Amino acid sequence: MSQFFSSRYRDLTPYTPGEQPQERRYIKLNTNESPFPPSPGVLKAVYEEAQRLQLYSDPESRKLRKALAEYFGMKPEQFLAGNGSDELLNFAFMAFCDEEHPAFFPDITYGFYPVYAQLNHIPYREIPLREDLTFCLDDVQEKGMIVLANPNAPTGLAKSPDEIEALLQKRPDDLLVVDEAYVDFGAESVMPLIDRYDNLLVIQTFSKSRSMAGARLGFAAGSAELICDLNTLKYSTNPYNVNRMTEAAGVAALQEDAYYKENAKQIIQNRQFTAEALRSMGFEIPESKANFLFARSSKIDGGTLYRALKERGILVRHFNKPRISDYVRITIGTREEMQILLQETKAILEDQI
Amino acid sequence: MSQFFSSRYRDLTPYTPGEQPQERRYIKLNTNESPFPPSPGVLKAVYEEAQRLQLYSDPESRKLRKALAEYFGMKPEQFLAGNGSDELLNFAFMAFCDEEHPAFFPDITYGFYPVYAQLNHIPYREIPLREDLTFCLDDVQEKGMIVLANPNAPTGLAKSPDEIEALLQKRPDDLLVVDEAYVDFGAESVMPLIDRYDNLLVIQTFSKSRSMAGARLGFAAGSAELICDLNTLKYSTNPYNVNRMTEAAGVAALQEDAYYKENAKQIIQNRQFTAEALRSMGFEIPESKANFLFARSSKIDGGTLYRALKERGILVRHFNKPRISDYVRITIGTREEMQILLQETKAILEDQI
Repeated sequence: MSQFFSSRYRDLTPYTPGEQPQERRYIKLNTNESPFPPSPGVLKAVYEEAQRLQLYSDPESRKLRKALAEYFGMKPEQFLAGNGSDELLNFAFMAFCDEEHPAFFPDITYGFYPVYAQLNHIPYREIPLREDLTFCLDDVQEKGMIVLANPNAPTGLAKSPDEIEALLQKRPDDLLVVDEAYVDFGAESVMPLIDRYDNLLVIQTFSKSRSMAGARLGFAAGSAELICDLNTLKYSTNPYNVNRMTEAAGVAALQEDAYYKENAKQIIQNRQFTAEALRSMGFEIPESKANFLFARSSKIDGGTLYRALKERGILVRHFNKPRISDYVRITIGTREEMQILLQETKAILEDQI
Repeated sequence: MSQFFSSRYRDLTPYTPGEQPQERRYIKLNTNESPFPPSPGVLKAVYEEAQRLQLYSDPESRKLRKALAEYFGMKPEQFLAGNGSDELLNFAFMAFCDEEHPAFFPDITYGFYPVYAQLNHIPYREIPLREDLTFCLDDVQEKGMIVLANPNAPTGLAKSPDEIEALLQKRPDDLLVVDEAYVDFGAESVMPLIDRYDNLLVIQTFSKSRSMAGARLGFAAGSAELICDLNTLKYSTNPYNVNRMTEAAGVAALQEDAYYKENAKQIIQNRQFTAEALRSMGFEIPESKANFLFARSSKIDGGTLYRALKERGILVRHFNKPRISDYVRITIGTREEMQILLQETKAILEDQI
């Protein structure tokens, strides 16, 4: 820390992203990336767009917002593109929370939410998940913004649109942010509710089902008024937040939807296959609707399993945190990768005995 | 504005970026972009990197920081990469200013500085430039962070490293941020001072001399402690802030330095040619060390000239602000573009009579 660092941020504990090792090749099942490369149209669009790299990107991301509007049957002014959904989540905390409007989210969820709250000096309360890791929406009674990852990470558990709609109706004066990063792997999106509820903001990403984690592209969807508020912050921090290549890649990915839908289908199949195999080894796993499994076994603790897998060339994610340190989170990769994971896990469990 | 927008930001006036029209082709001399495309190695690197788009980018941007360290003869830990230099400027305001540490910058400079201050609720004072548009460093006496665009925009005037070093020596307990976005067009960088002054933070961009405005890449350079403070904010907002394609493009651009140096040389020549021609038409122009000219004429006001050029298919930038509304800022393009600009300007002046 330098002598110049403001006291405003001295107590801030930043988010810790999953390992991104550069020195050794791993089977990488630790950051919920897709095992499938981008589609041919994405590569073509990137290359073409790179020829014009000397010109700024469109600060309004008009082509992408038009494509999103067509894809979802909505209007361009209901969308804002971001440098990954992380940027948009931060804008949402900034725009819609303050001393009088605290933030609420589960105690076990995306670990970045409390960081955004701390960064922006926003009061927040973590709502304890029930013993079975489910989140009961009635457990929040206070006024403020609720942030709901659906499906939740790292549990993989999803809520139905009906449950979410009931909350929107019950709390018309509180904003609900639904983070649908993993929605394309078997959960149901609340995007269709946006036109009926002005207290709903949905955030999605191209990082997972659309194989674009390395391109950094997310979007927020909501009423034109909510999007306008987020734009006030975007134009006060980084107007050209989405680069040319990424915007072009996003448009192309929406055009090649069938490819990504087929990939998601395969991931769902691999998830079922992997979950069954792990359960037959004695692992306990909540019913995941995401591209990962959250697994624990009474035979081995999470940290030990994580380290043993890493030694054998497989990276999974372990959270050294209360209530979930027993678990590892395993990203669903290709069938072959899952077979290696199962084989090595079996060998590790046998070594334990 | 929605009912949910926090009172914290209701009075915020966002930055207005230059026009990025999509509907019509203009000779675009309004946002200080390079007229030259990226080098072949950049295109190749982008295409190769796009094959791995399904994987997150390296949050530490290790390859780029290593390349920057080699290029400048410094250490990787003295660099932080950003999603354009705008992101890094915002981090600098956040990290190093607060109620007790106000910000100081000229009244005529990059229009984003006051927005960062307002966004972060930081007190600031705009130091009036002298009548000849020069900035006198002694005109700041209070304690706090000084932000100096060098060369300054939109004037193009540059300070020498000696003048800046004198300030660093005189004020060891105040941070000086030097924004060197335009330094490669004939000014002298203060990068070599970083190892001797821990109160110096330099911010540069790949947008201008390296033809990468549409890729969004900037970097901050300073003591490892200053960079560590900025990283605390980066990891609390957007750890994967630089995408894969842009990082690869940045590394490739540093490898093909000769191409970009030659382009900068041509821009300097075109600037001299254009400045002479405009002066011979009666324009008054400060001595620019950047890739633009700031020009006014007693024969026509800035707004009128801007609109007349736009009608004729040429975009320049006009700032409707006190003290500078007489001027237009003209980005230096190719020789051919400059010839058309001069020809149309001449015709507009003749129409005026």
